[in-house]
Amino acid sequence: MNTPLFNLFEHLPDARQAEQFEDILRLPGIRIERIVSCGQSSPEGYWYDQPEGEWVMVLQGQGVIEFDDGRLLTLNSGDGIHIPPHCRHRVAATTDTTIWLAVFYGSPTPAQ
Amino acid sequence: MNTPLFNLFEHLPDARQAEQFEDILRLPGIRIERIVSCGQSSPEGYWYDQPEGEWVMVLQGQGVIEFDDGRLLTLNSGDGIHIPPHCRHRVAATTDTTIWLAVFYGSPTPAQ
Repeated sequence: MNTPLFNLFEHLPDARQAEQFEDILRLPGIRIERIVSCGQSSPEGYWYDQPEGEWVMVLQGQGVIEFDDGRLLTLNSGDGIHIPPHCRHRVAATTDTTIWLAVFYGSPTPAQ
Repeated sequence: MNTPLFNLFEHLPDARQAEQFEDILRLPGIRIERIVSCGQSSPEGYWYDQPEGEWVMVLQGQGVIEFDDGRLLTLNSGDGIHIPPHCRHRVAATTDTTIWLAVFYGSPTPAQ
């Protein structure tokens, strides 16, 4: 059985032009993504409104998440947070090389 | 909506007597755990044989995972690996304060 190692801190994609999203694992019901940001934020007024639940942590750097109730949460290295399905949020700020680990679960079936 | 931050590097439990397991998130279909090891390994001859799939990474320190085909994989900080359901494995070694992040998915229903 092939179970390759993947180091989240290595072989970083160049994110200077745009945030980079890479699947680490993608299976029914679960998706794990590495996101590399380089100072980007979500467009003003744009909200993620996802049918999946998400648990996200910052592995390196810093990221600020804004919720549509006005809360701003600053995540530093090691900080993780749960974002339930349809909890509207956006990335308000990132630092130069922010590495996120995002775990998405409960992808709804097409019938939903 | 309450979405508390949790820092995986802080408030470490005392793992000198035994590995410490803490749920970070536990919902149907998904479980995220922090495991803190302090030099422990699985008992000789013991194999994890889990119905759930697992994706696990080392956040700090080092851990060695042994598979029942004899492979030994050393995970350093940032290394992640996918362990499919029923892929028999054990923890062969850890260093003083190894912090693992483990994501379990696809908990089978009782009927399975």
